[in-house]
Amino acid sequence: MEFSFVKGGTAACWILEREAYTGVAKIAKKVCGDTQLVTGVCPEIRLNPAGCAAPVIIGTLAHSPLLQQLEQAGKADFSAIRGKWETFSFQLVSKPFAGVEQALVIAGSDKRGTIYGLFHLSELLHVSPWVRFGDAVPQKQTKVTFTEKDNFISKEPSVKYRGFFINDEWPAFGNWTFAHFGGFTAEMYDMIFETLLRLKGNYLWPAMWTSSFTLDGPGEENARLADEYGVVMCNSHHEPCLRHSEEWDKVRGENSPYGNEWNYYTNREGLLRYWHDGLQRSGKYENVITIGMRGERDSSMLGPDATLKQNIDLLKDIITEQRRLITETVTPVSGEMPQMLALYKEVEAYFYGDKSTPGLKDWDGLDGVTLMLCEDNFGNMRTLPTEALRGHRGGWGMYYHFDYHGGPVSYEWVNSSYLPKVWDQMTEAYEFGIRDIWVVNVGDLKFQEYPLSFFMDLAYDYEKWGSKNLNAPEEYLQSWVQREFRALPPRQKTLLADVMRGYTKLSHNRKPEALRPDTYHPVHYAEAERVLRQAEGIKEKLEFLKQNVPQELLPEFWELVYYPAMGNLNVLELNLYAGWNHFAAEVGATIANDYAEAMKACLARDRALTETFHHLLGGKWNGMGLSEHIGFTHWNDEDCRYPVQMSVEPAGKPRLVGYVAGEGTCTSGGDWTGKPLLMRQFLEAGINTGSFVLLNASAAPVAFTVDCDVPGVTFSKTVGVVSKREEIQVTVNKTLLPKDSSFTVRYTGGNLRFVLCADYAVLPQCPPKTFLEAGGLISIEAEHFAACRPGNGGAFTVLPAYGKTLSGVKALPCTASFTPKTAPCLDYAVRTTGAGVWTALFYSAPANPPESGQNLSFGLQVNHEETQTVTLLPEGYDAGNPACAPWCEMVLDQIRVTPCRVSLQDGINTLRVFALDPGFTLEKIVLVRSTDRLLSSYLGPQETYFCE
Amino acid sequence: MEFSFVKGGTAACWILEREAYTGVAKIAKKVCGDTQLVTGVCPEIRLNPAGCAAPVIIGTLAHSPLLQQLEQAGKADFSAIRGKWETFSFQLVSKPFAGVEQALVIAGSDKRGTIYGLFHLSELLHVSPWVRFGDAVPQKQTKVTFTEKDNFISKEPSVKYRGFFINDEWPAFGNWTFAHFGGFTAEMYDMIFETLLRLKGNYLWPAMWTSSFTLDGPGEENARLADEYGVVMCNSHHEPCLRHSEEWDKVRGENSPYGNEWNYYTNREGLLRYWHDGLQRSGKYENVITIGMRGERDSSMLGPDATLKQNIDLLKDIITEQRRLITETVTPVSGEMPQMLALYKEVEAYFYGDKSTPGLKDWDGLDGVTLMLCEDNFGNMRTLPTEALRGHRGGWGMYYHFDYHGGPVSYEWVNSSYLPKVWDQMTEAYEFGIRDIWVVNVGDLKFQEYPLSFFMDLAYDYEKWGSKNLNAPEEYLQSWVQREFRALPPRQKTLLADVMRGYTKLSHNRKPEALRPDTYHPVHYAEAERVLRQAEGIKEKLEFLKQNVPQELLPEFWELVYYPAMGNLNVLELNLYAGWNHFAAEVGATIANDYAEAMKACLARDRALTETFHHLLGGKWNGMGLSEHIGFTHWNDEDCRYPVQMSVEPAGKPRLVGYVAGEGTCTSGGDWTGKPLLMRQFLEAGINTGSFVLLNASAAPVAFTVDCDVPGVTFSKTVGVVSKREEIQVTVNKTLLPKDSSFTVRYTGGNLRFVLCADYAVLPQCPPKTFLEAGGLISIEAEHFAACRPGNGGAFTVLPAYGKTLSGVKALPCTASFTPKTAPCLDYAVRTTGAGVWTALFYSAPANPPESGQNLSFGLQVNHEETQTVTLLPEGYDAGNPACAPWCEMVLDQIRVTPCRVSLQDGINTLRVFALDPGFTLEKIVLVRSTDRLLSSYLGPQETYFCE
Repeated sequence: MEFSFVKGGTAACWILEREAYTGVAKIAKKVCGDTQLVTGVCPEIRLNPAGCAAPVIIGTLAHSPLLQQLEQAGKADFSAIRGKWETFSFQLVSKPFAGVEQALVIAGSDKRGTIYGLFHLSELLHVSPWVRFGDAVPQKQTKVTFTEKDNFISKEPSVKYRGFFINDEWPAFGNWTFAHFGGFTAEMYDMIFETLLRLKGNYLWPAMWTSSFTLDGPGEENARLADEYGVVMCNSHHEPCLRHSEEWDKVRGENSPYGNEWNYYTNREGLLRYWHDGLQRSGKYENVITIGMRGERDSSMLGPDATLKQNIDLLKDIITEQRRLITETVTPVSGEMPQMLALYKEVEAYFYGDKSTPGLKDWDGLDGVTLMLCEDNFGNMRTLPTEALRGHRGGWGMYYHFDYHGGPVSYEWVNSSYLPKVWDQMTEAYEFGIRDIWVVNVGDLKFQEYPLSFFMDLAYDYEKWGSKNLNAPEEYLQSWVQREFRALPPRQKTLLADVMRGYTKLSHNRKPEALRPDTYHPVHYAEAERVLRQAEGIKEKLEFLKQNVPQELLPEFWELVYYPAMGNLNVLELNLYAGWNHFAAEVGATIANDYAEAMKACLARDRALTETFHHLLGGKWNGMGLSEHIGFTHWNDEDCRYPVQMSVEPAGKPRLVGYVAGEGTCTSGGDWTGKPLLMRQFLEAGINTGSFVLLNASAAPVAFTVDCDVPGVTFSKTVGVVSKREEIQVTVNKTLLPKDSSFTVRYTGGNLRFVLCADYAVLPQCPPKTFLEAGGLISIEAEHFAACRPGNGGAFTVLPAYGKTLSGVKALPCTASFTPKTAPCLDYAVRTTGAGVWTALFYSAPANPPESGQNLSFGLQVNHEETQTVTLLPEGYDAGNPACAPWCEMVLDQIRVTPCRVSLQDGINTLRVFALDPGFTLEKIVLVRSTDRLLSSYLGPQETYFCE
Repeated sequence: MEFSFVKGGTAACWILEREAYTGVAKIAKKVCGDTQLVTGVCPEIRLNPAGCAAPVIIGTLAHSPLLQQLEQAGKADFSAIRGKWETFSFQLVSKPFAGVEQALVIAGSDKRGTIYGLFHLSELLHVSPWVRFGDAVPQKQTKVTFTEKDNFISKEPSVKYRGFFINDEWPAFGNWTFAHFGGFTAEMYDMIFETLLRLKGNYLWPAMWTSSFTLDGPGEENARLADEYGVVMCNSHHEPCLRHSEEWDKVRGENSPYGNEWNYYTNREGLLRYWHDGLQRSGKYENVITIGMRGERDSSMLGPDATLKQNIDLLKDIITEQRRLITETVTPVSGEMPQMLALYKEVEAYFYGDKSTPGLKDWDGLDGVTLMLCEDNFGNMRTLPTEALRGHRGGWGMYYHFDYHGGPVSYEWVNSSYLPKVWDQMTEAYEFGIRDIWVVNVGDLKFQEYPLSFFMDLAYDYEKWGSKNLNAPEEYLQSWVQREFRALPPRQKTLLADVMRGYTKLSHNRKPEALRPDTYHPVHYAEAERVLRQAEGIKEKLEFLKQNVPQELLPEFWELVYYPAMGNLNVLELNLYAGWNHFAAEVGATIANDYAEAMKACLARDRALTETFHHLLGGKWNGMGLSEHIGFTHWNDEDCRYPVQMSVEPAGKPRLVGYVAGEGTCTSGGDWTGKPLLMRQFLEAGINTGSFVLLNASAAPVAFTVDCDVPGVTFSKTVGVVSKREEIQVTVNKTLLPKDSSFTVRYTGGNLRFVLCADYAVLPQCPPKTFLEAGGLISIEAEHFAACRPGNGGAFTVLPAYGKTLSGVKALPCTASFTPKTAPCLDYAVRTTGAGVWTALFYSAPANPPESGQNLSFGLQVNHEETQTVTLLPEGYDAGNPACAPWCEMVLDQIRVTPCRVSLQDGINTLRVFALDPGFTLEKIVLVRSTDRLLSSYLGPQETYFCE
């Protein structure tokens, strides 16, 4: 059986009965629009199938006589969806009614089920959820038909409430919506609701700064429209009882019935009346009602002198009264009225209580309330439900961030989230039992299309993208590229995936707002150079795509790919050039002035990008690119600073500054100044080439010669002229090279001596995956363990592409704790030359302990020594608190580095790492001999040689 | 009786007998030259007075039959000078011989006495000692006559050997002498010897890098000429037995009779032969012979594993052998052969030994040897002879520095020494018994004319300039200006003295080589602005003088005044502008770019100054200006860096950065960012005006208004436009001003709130010299004590103009130690509002303890509490050791700041400071309440209000 949806310029007619939800009808029109976009033909919507040979019948169970009729006639069976949450069936029915040959029946178990069923149709038409908010243009098709193969019964969504939070909406979103829609109006929200539903979301926190959702529609139009669409509204954590933060200032006052103080002690009656009236006004719409109370504008309510118990008792009273008001005022849509309490900031402490003071968790007054947790604002889970609490009636929610306004540094510009991390953290949340609400702060929404797609799909279909699928982030990327840019040839899709993967990894490693000239070291381990090479590689692909993407796909390409990627990369390059500018300026090298020019070019490009965006599609997005995004010096943007451009006055006489590439010690001084430049790279097995750099610090070019009479050394050049910078490659034959060799660079005005330090003329015999000491240094990527031994109830597992360098290794299941005796472990093999004391640096994910008041630890055993427990968190550590310096450093750095002193014997040693607490994800181990010293760097030294 | 020296175009003829020293004859010719320069007439020199009616008779006792004849005839009496060291008589004798009417008789007790007598004549002719090396041009006189009033018997010099060390002679002196004299030749040294003798010096350490005095004359001509002139040669501390450092490399070798190793263990015979031959070659000239031995090129001789005793024993053996060689080889000019052992670096430790190992001081092998001490290379005395050692036969010498090549930072360019400090330290040396040798490192000699003049005059006439004359530095300055620039009108002399006093104070506070952009804080306490104002004041005077000084005086003015002063001030301004450049760049203010231009102008001026100098007088000094002098990053110059010029890209929207003048906290953020700008200056009594600054961080000018409704506040403007920078003065009437007032600066894009903190609407009644708390701060100049109480055997005395700010206060006599019970003391009165804990910071001179292994301390009593002993030196302190960070910081900063916690009561408190150890010189006391915080600065906060 083939159902002609569109064929020969004609579309099947659509049947929507009088009983259909108006919201469903509106969505049906949108999907008709999708159909027209794809096929050029807009289906006609009728009230009944009379006269339609092959209609599309759309209905919601219990709201559709036609569906009832079909089922009663045995033509269709909806028992698979009946009574379920947001499910739909999509099936071809033969001869459904008299005179009707066949029908496509889209039936929802409830309003949103039907809407998802409609958008399932859009999906089959290859219309992107971003068709409206992301200017996606679907491929044209002249003929669309369905067969029984397309029959589909949807599952219930994995997470009950799934949505996002439009936040930090000034200056970008706010200016944009005022310019285009006259404010935060229903005209604008229609676009947001539609997008949310297309993403199979159902839940929204609306914009809240200089905006009150229920007043700005105009009037209640926003709330009404949301309810019509089945969008469940909620407020952010500090806006209880369906009232908005900004509303209070509008109605408070000395003579107001609500009083003037946002203080439950002094103005209990006024506040209760305020909440009552809010519930009465908005309770008629579908909501998750926020309860609890915080001080005004995100602050704590009682002064610092109040005891924990006083605070808890106050909150209990508030919640009791609020819940009473809810029961009295609001009629639930079905069953219980969903309520939510955010365990955010100080409220978390009230929830857990302490040893002598029971917290809210031990109180029955929260029964049935969804408890909302929050990560640390930078994408890392904080406390998660303990096993005992997972059963809480009302369940758990998670408030996550792709955008954040706060310390240490705000990020509100473009996407800087990275799917492997989002996947890891949100699957962890799910596994810990957070399955009732997932909401993510998307700031202006614009430019968060990519991670938000993933977040929504993960929340909807955990079975597909969740913890069982370790490769989900990469698979999702591939499918997303296919979904959004279906029309591109495969080669371009590959490039586009490379771009998305590449720029998000870089922006994960350091958010653009937090980039500084000294983030990546300009010289050490050549990391700035390596990062620049990555960035330039991605930019090349981006530019190629921009030239080759078909015209109609350009707007979506520009918004979802080009601007976020190029914006990120350009700010990165700005800071890399600034780092080199500062480095060169500080050693007096005139190339600093060239780097300053490169910085200027980056700033000009940054401005041009926003300009272009604001003019796209006739100015559709004008205003949306206004966020500050360079050089935050603290959380707020008023002290943002562009990186300083340094310029250099050349010395009055010939002067060269020399250094070894990858190692930043600089000198202009001759041998006799006692500062030889050590080329230590040859101490690593397998490394036979390295280079040194000569920078000119004088006005005129400086001629030089390389003077070397050592056997086994060759240079890429031995005479030359340094205009600004010369990098000269040195190749050694370690079997010929004498010990302690050196060579000299001579020029008028001085000479520079370089000492060649080398090792491993002959490679030692070692078992596979044995790392060889490279002159006091060993650097190991976590996945290059020599052995991985499962424990009792879990095993270390590689998380591909996770973290800052190669990957992460984490003990799964992620909820499991282990004792040293039962723990899974990883063995790392290192071969040193000579016994000694080393510092082992463990680079692990910036995780927080999932249980309140706990630390994070892992076990470490060196050879046959006793296993030691290594704790990762310093005393007083407080995740999410911008006053906690170690946390701030860690979230910006995206890594936690934990040093341990270890004694290693001469020859082969084993370092065994045991999993203990959930959350520990190892990325890298760096070992430094105590007589050596690690160079400062952002990524740490590159992995050193190991035997295959 | 009037003696016509030159009259009516005729000069008296000069009589120099055949018996006269050839050196005296040569000097006589030079003084004839002086006479011609002044009068246009050159006297004729004859062998006898026959035919001269009124001759000038010049002779040395025991080398002049004429003098003998005069004395025998009772015409003259030389008993006052006979047998004395370097004395002369200058007297008119009536009818000395038959047919001779009168004579001017210049008689020397010895060769140098006669020479000084001749230069006394030059002095009377107002010919500067710098006539040759400083291009001084004396005033013309047509008539010179003398009367009995000019009769003069000179005193013996205060210090036996007085001279300087030409050192660190590359690149300046070396290039200069090669260009003009073909090397370090006698032709050049003639100029040096003459200058030394004109300065009444007698002792020289010759240049020693790429130069060997006794080989370069050519041949022995240098040594021969020195001897002829009576210049006593010596070598620097590590060149024993009349051998030069560079000589060794010329004669050493596997087949050399001297062997190849500069190692007394392995090459004893060779070295002894080397020294023997040196003594034999040069011992015939007048020398102070260096003994002892150090490793090659200023390093220690034995390895680090040798014990103290091994080192001492080795040195004893060396010295014994060297002294034996001297006795065997050298015939002393008179009495004992003068010998010198430098107690420098490690040799000092060998001298003092330790508890279990007697040092050289307890050995009789040094009897008769002058022991040479050295300050810390930065002008601060180190160990001085203890009372027990002062009687050492052979006496003591001091090696002082106006120029130094070494850590932490070399200073070899122009004068940066300050007479009050030189006076204080060299009188201390003298009082501690160092009276046999004074030698000062003058680097290239050029540009050290001013401090060297003082050094030589102090050494020659301690009675006049020494410790009894507290005002000697200022008096000397006046007399020096008079001596060098006699021809200037008084007003210009005053300006010139202001220039010398002013620039040397600034360069004393921070040597130009050690200036950094962050030396003076660009904002705190407005110190950079105050320093710039000083520098500009001096520059105005300099430019006025340059325009007005008579043409013939311009060369000397340029060399002795203009270049050193302008050079210093220009490098200072460069760094001040760099400080502002960096400060402005870091807050994103576009005025940074203007400061960068100012930096460029300073660098251009610096180059132009050297250019001009090199072209002066037809290139006479070409090469002498080549020393590096900007931005030393360590001791040697190869890593010198010009200050980095930072430039700023303006923000894309209006942005003002505000701060309170004198207080560097900057913000662009509105009130709600929680960063109000506090105007705390009004917390000080007597302060009713202050200002705040607005910097523009955006491209276009930004209009602002000042919004203030507080009574008692007026502004220099309340509306305006900030193009780059606006400073707005605020005047308050404290009696009207309400507590916690504030005002707001508004502009498109933000607003800035300033809070007015004020105190002392009514002044409290206090005794005179009581300092009032100024908002947690009290700053006291040391001389503003409330009482000065003498102790047993000494009293605190104000050293005018001493130190970094106003003056110093030091217990004199400087050799005295005190116990707390007998110590002199100073009382300081401070009135606080509210009891509390304070940090008292004692700013004292960067002195070192005069006794080896001791600390420096003073006593401190707060109100009636127990007196505490405050020690100034941290553990491991090692004066003169560039590896000792506290010492390095102190010598560059020219101050030592010692913090003490003190508890002060509400109301008036007394801080009593007791002298304990010699060397402690107090400059300033700053008190900060523990709840407040001192702003970083170079000079500390300015003195705060005290009751008159």
